[in-house]
Amino acid sequence: MSSIQLGSDGALRHLLTLEGLARERLTALLDTADAFRESHERGVKAMPILRGRTLVGLFFEPSTRTRVSFEIAARKLSADVVHFDIAQSSTRKGESVHDTLATLAALGCDLFVVRHQTAGTAAHLAERLPEGCALINAGDGEHAHPTQGLLDALTIRQRKGGFAGLKVAIVGDIRHSRVARSDVHALLALGVEEIRLCGPPQLLPEVAPAGCRVEPSADRAVAGADVVIALRLQKERMEAGLVPSEDEYFRDFGIDARRLALAAPDAILMHPGPINRGVEIASEVADGPQSVILEQVRNGVFVRMAVMAHLAGAR
Amino acid sequence: MSSIQLGSDGALRHLLTLEGLARERLTALLDTADAFRESHERGVKAMPILRGRTLVGLFFEPSTRTRVSFEIAARKLSADVVHFDIAQSSTRKGESVHDTLATLAALGCDLFVVRHQTAGTAAHLAERLPEGCALINAGDGEHAHPTQGLLDALTIRQRKGGFAGLKVAIVGDIRHSRVARSDVHALLALGVEEIRLCGPPQLLPEVAPAGCRVEPSADRAVAGADVVIALRLQKERMEAGLVPSEDEYFRDFGIDARRLALAAPDAILMHPGPINRGVEIASEVADGPQSVILEQVRNGVFVRMAVMAHLAGAR
Amino acid sequence: MSSIQLGSDGALRHLLTLEGLARERLTALLDTADAFRESHERGVKAMPILRGRTLVGLFFEPSTRTRVSFEIAARKLSADVVHFDIAQSSTRKGESVHDTLATLAALGCDLFVVRHQTAGTAAHLAERLPEGCALINAGDGEHAHPTQGLLDALTIRQRKGGFAGLKVAIVGDIRHSRVARSDVHALLALGVEEIRLCGPPQLLPEVAPAGCRVEPSADRAVAGADVVIALRLQKERMEAGLVPSEDEYFRDFGIDARRLALAAPDAILMHPGPINRGVEIASEVADGPQSVILEQVRNGVFVRMAVMAHLAGAR
Repeated sequence: MSSIQLGSDGALRHLLTLEGLARERLTALLDTADAFRESHERGVKAMPILRGRTLVGLFFEPSTRTRVSFEIAARKLSADVVHFDIAQSSTRKGESVHDTLATLAALGCDLFVVRHQTAGTAAHLAERLPEGCALINAGDGEHAHPTQGLLDALTIRQRKGGFAGLKVAIVGDIRHSRVARSDVHALLALGVEEIRLCGPPQLLPEVAPAGCRVEPSADRAVAGADVVIALRLQKERMEAGLVPSEDEYFRDFGIDARRLALAAPDAILMHPGPINRGVEIASEVADGPQSVILEQVRNGVFVRMAVMAHLAGAR
Repeated sequence: MSSIQLGSDGALRHLLTLEGLARERLTALLDTADAFRESHERGVKAMPILRGRTLVGLFFEPSTRTRVSFEIAARKLSADVVHFDIAQSSTRKGESVHDTLATLAALGCDLFVVRHQTAGTAAHLAERLPEGCALINAGDGEHAHPTQGLLDALTIRQRKGGFAGLKVAIVGDIRHSRVARSDVHALLALGVEEIRLCGPPQLLPEVAPAGCRVEPSADRAVAGADVVIALRLQKERMEAGLVPSEDEYFRDFGIDARRLALAAPDAILMHPGPINRGVEIASEVADGPQSVILEQVRNGVFVRMAVMAHLAGAR
Repeated sequence: MSSIQLGSDGALRHLLTLEGLARERLTALLDTADAFRESHERGVKAMPILRGRTLVGLFFEPSTRTRVSFEIAARKLSADVVHFDIAQSSTRKGESVHDTLATLAALGCDLFVVRHQTAGTAAHLAERLPEGCALINAGDGEHAHPTQGLLDALTIRQRKGGFAGLKVAIVGDIRHSRVARSDVHALLALGVEEIRLCGPPQLLPEVAPAGCRVEPSADRAVAGADVVIALRLQKERMEAGLVPSEDEYFRDFGIDARRLALAAPDAILMHPGPINRGVEIASEVADGPQSVILEQVRNGVFVRMAVMAHLAGAR
């Protein structure tokens, strides 16, 4: 867990990881997200919670859906959004990332959303941000993607009413997945009964995280599960020879109608997106009645609003 | 005509093409555009018609002027605008365009402006958009560019008072031009007397559209015309050998002072931009008193506001 | 000096250069910037001074910090900001820059911020802008960077209380620096006692500007100075063989603790950013108590607000 994300008063100063966050805090974040969703559905278009604050996204790895989700969330809370194109920035001219952030803070940016290919970058940058600035980790290497963990938890809670007694199967490249890591942190803290981690041997963690069970067979991992989370297969894994072929991967680990039928009858199917149809998920189930993939996307906006509101001290 | 752009109640749900739109609807759109222009000129800076709605532009073919025009129009109606860079998006990671749109809709985007190199893409995407979302075709291959057709019609109506009795010459690459196609649909429905289509033999349509006359000689096409529309010559045509050289093209089809003098004395000169000076149009007339090229640009904003307002159900 | 930046009534119509601007006008701009800074610090988030105006940035040379600074400044004054990506624009399709600007003006843009690699471009473009549009030079080749000159002057005034009696050392590539040029224009007009220009022989001006003293030794330039301005060393100078090596440059012209200690005890250290640590400036002083580098960044926003407000006729 990251010691710098909580202030000495216990308030959330940054959101770097879900590891170590107490159930009460996670629940409070999900409650806020639900409240924002209800306001939205009642027709409230914008709230002044972040008026006068300025969000800037620094995406060292490109990501449209996450960037847009944060941007829409920030606007709904009346924040300004600054567009920052890493590819055209001074970091290209040799400026250090720290200096770039210090400059943006001096310009008035005070909410930083950072995605970076290297684990630990979010914490590293947050440490040196000036007082009054907050940083949200939008994915750092294989380390964490905390807002994804929260939006997955929110989607599960909405559909299942709670976490007690739930069996969750996560299928795919567990070893390299920041999504899996953040899901595990959130779901264990929130009290699911069992998490099963499933994937090709080379993509399983060397040591199963406490509270999780490694299950090499996808059929057995999915059997009786209440929640099935398919992970995106990165093309890099294929290129690195860690996965034989898309066809074999789909046969052994892809979620299709036959495999999903092994889960609990009312199981929900999740995926962080973007999906590779016919690789880790079949179209018949991605577009089927058990899929909550677009619900996850929708919840992402409300979860990010909740995180920003908590960071701003509003509850 | 596209059957999906009208709802069962006859309301405009998407704007995909002008083909098949009745004169009354076209006139209503132009009237709304005129009203927006008058409001603007009276100093009204913004109207709340699209408050809470979110526009996203998906430009698979880059276009600055059209993108900016839609963005300014959306802002004047108080919509939010999301920036979506196709080049950095998940469609590059293999996500289908349908999934990208479904994701953006789940994020809260509900007004899609799409430009794509393939004819039919706009309709194809509109068909699968969720309820409550509208799509505006900002150009699909050689098929249609309906807002250009409307802004051209608006410009003509402002300058000529109406359409009855007008002779219109369109000069250039008729065969591949979505601008020409949308102009023809708009102007015939609005009741011009005659449309003359002129260009090199290889760039003329194989069959003249009903109501149009093909005229291989630019001098004869322009003679007596009330409106002369020069089309942009795409460099691809030259490279494909469909046009001999810029010089020859200019001599045979370029609009210069001599050729424009063959038109009616009060003829107006139009061009969809960006212009190739010295290729399809001479600077002396592009910047001359008969040119309404910048009026077209100005009207583009008001026409796009009108289309969005009609799509939103406001009239 | 540029004759077109002042209207016949003496009002500021564009900001192209500081050369020739009277001390009274510079002082008025700094006063407005100070007032905006105070409002901001009292918690005023936005002012309606530019409501209904639309700023567009045309950065032919990429620059994130300057672009963001203008954008934040414009938003604080309630202007709309249009994103214009030169790399994807029609100027790439062969459209002239004049036609691009005329098109943007027809679309409703009326505040143009232009950075270009060629000296004189800003004035050249401003000349042909339609009535009601204003242009701010954000750097044109080696010619001028007037908002940088103003923000440097503001930072000095805030720290030193005024300009009389001040000794200023500017160290680096004086010959090619638009920052140095604009600083000299501002500081001489505002009444500093002495400006010393220092750099490698090939990077010094052939003729020292009136009121400046060329000083080849960095130690002597810095000795007793109240203000030390280190300029960024462009990699191009190194590649062109105008500078031997980073190490030699740092030894001879870099500002480190030893060299800064030669200045007045309360001297301030400035740099336009982004900084090359260990090339023109040592980390120990860049991050030290005499450094006002982030103050410069902060003041940039307020100075740009002041320039826009003056251009809009508000004082």
